[in-house]
Amino acid sequence: MSELTIWTLDWVPEGPRGFVRDLRLRWACEEAGLPYEIRTIPFDDRETNHLARQPFGQVPFLSDGTLEMFESGAGLLHLARKSERLMPRDPAGEAETQQWTIAALNSIEMISVPWWFLEISGAEDNRLAGWMEKRLGQMEQVLSAREWLVGDRFTVADLLMADVLRIPKVRAYGDRPVTEAYVARMTDRPAFRKAHADQLAHFAAADASRSS
Amino acid sequence: MSELTIWTLDWVPEGPRGFVRDLRLRWACEEAGLPYEIRTIPFDDRETNHLARQPFGQVPFLSDGTLEMFESGAGLLHLARKSERLMPRDPAGEAETQQWTIAALNSIEMISVPWWFLEISGAEDNRLAGWMEKRLGQMEQVLSAREWLVGDRFTVADLLMADVLRIPKVRAYGDRPVTEAYVARMTDRPAFRKAHADQLAHFAAADASRSS
Repeated sequence: MSELTIWTLDWVPEGPRGFVRDLRLRWACEEAGLPYEIRTIPFDDRETNHLARQPFGQVPFLSDGTLEMFESGAGLLHLARKSERLMPRDPAGEAETQQWTIAALNSIEMISVPWWFLEISGAEDNRLAGWMEKRLGQMEQVLSAREWLVGDRFTVADLLMADVLRIPKVRAYGDRPVTEAYVARMTDRPAFRKAHADQLAHFAAADASRSS
Repeated sequence: MSELTIWTLDWVPEGPRGFVRDLRLRWACEEAGLPYEIRTIPFDDRETNHLARQPFGQVPFLSDGTLEMFESGAGLLHLARKSERLMPRDPAGEAETQQWTIAALNSIEMISVPWWFLEISGAEDNRLAGWMEKRLGQMEQVLSAREWLVGDRFTVADLLMADVLRIPKVRAYGDRPVTEAYVARMTDRPAFRKAHADQLAHFAAADASRSS
């Protein structure tokens, strides 16, 4: 039996399929060649049925033997310590990987997710648009100067940043050819494609039992 | 000379004093007893004058010998690896500290900062209010069951969560006595009080040279 278990929902509607954040952990395990299994909690009552394990009622969480942790970013950093394929082992490479991982969570996603939330909630004047524009412009500059966020290799920071930037509305936000090419390059990796296909298949398989 | 250098602005207006995020790194160093020095970049042209070191034009960043990193969250995790006073050394304690550190950045601050931004930008109908209400309610539940986020001791996760929650508008958001007591307890720690006083003194000292 695998030591690593990625917990996600047993089913979600069409909309979020391909974007549920268990994908980040699946992708990292695929990159690293770490075996894992998928286990689920029920979609129904999902906001309250697992608060003891995830106090915000979200997925994913990760277990590694007796360790259990929520927050996909924390899970990624944990997996990165298990495999050199996700993070270099020298102190500078490690510090830089950690820095860009946190930047994806706290400098980009902290704007892009609330901005996206305002968009879909129908706000006519999205007051986060200027901030969003600024951050995406800064990322376009960053990515213009390099192929990878850390050194000359893939790391878990690229995985997370690409996942943050690949949201369709974010991609469609402006003309950012370098960012677009970066996201395309990262999501063309076999590990992403497998993780993505597996998530789609997981939720599709649940359609049958749900409608029965 | 100290190995650790915390970089911040040479001056800021009254408003943000006491809240500039170099405080997080100062506080962590004070808790850990790690010597550090403060160095500055100019407030004028701050959005563009240090992009090579911080691509979003923000502070703080941290140097540790030849290592340099931005994102206060990444700096905190780096410091936590240098001192057991900031993070336990057992795998479970480390995973839990990392989890709550990321939760502060990506589950709480990802809502509270954009919510606060909408508030101060004069939005009449703050569409992030419901999400904010939900997250703060969940944190009130979490803190009702424990004194510290990780085990029975202070960690860098408490430092960061308390700093995220102590923003006056966030504290005033609702009647959350447990959260309020938690923030009061954390910010009453000698290390916080020294870091806070030092930041105020740093910016106040710059008033003279700025007006001269």
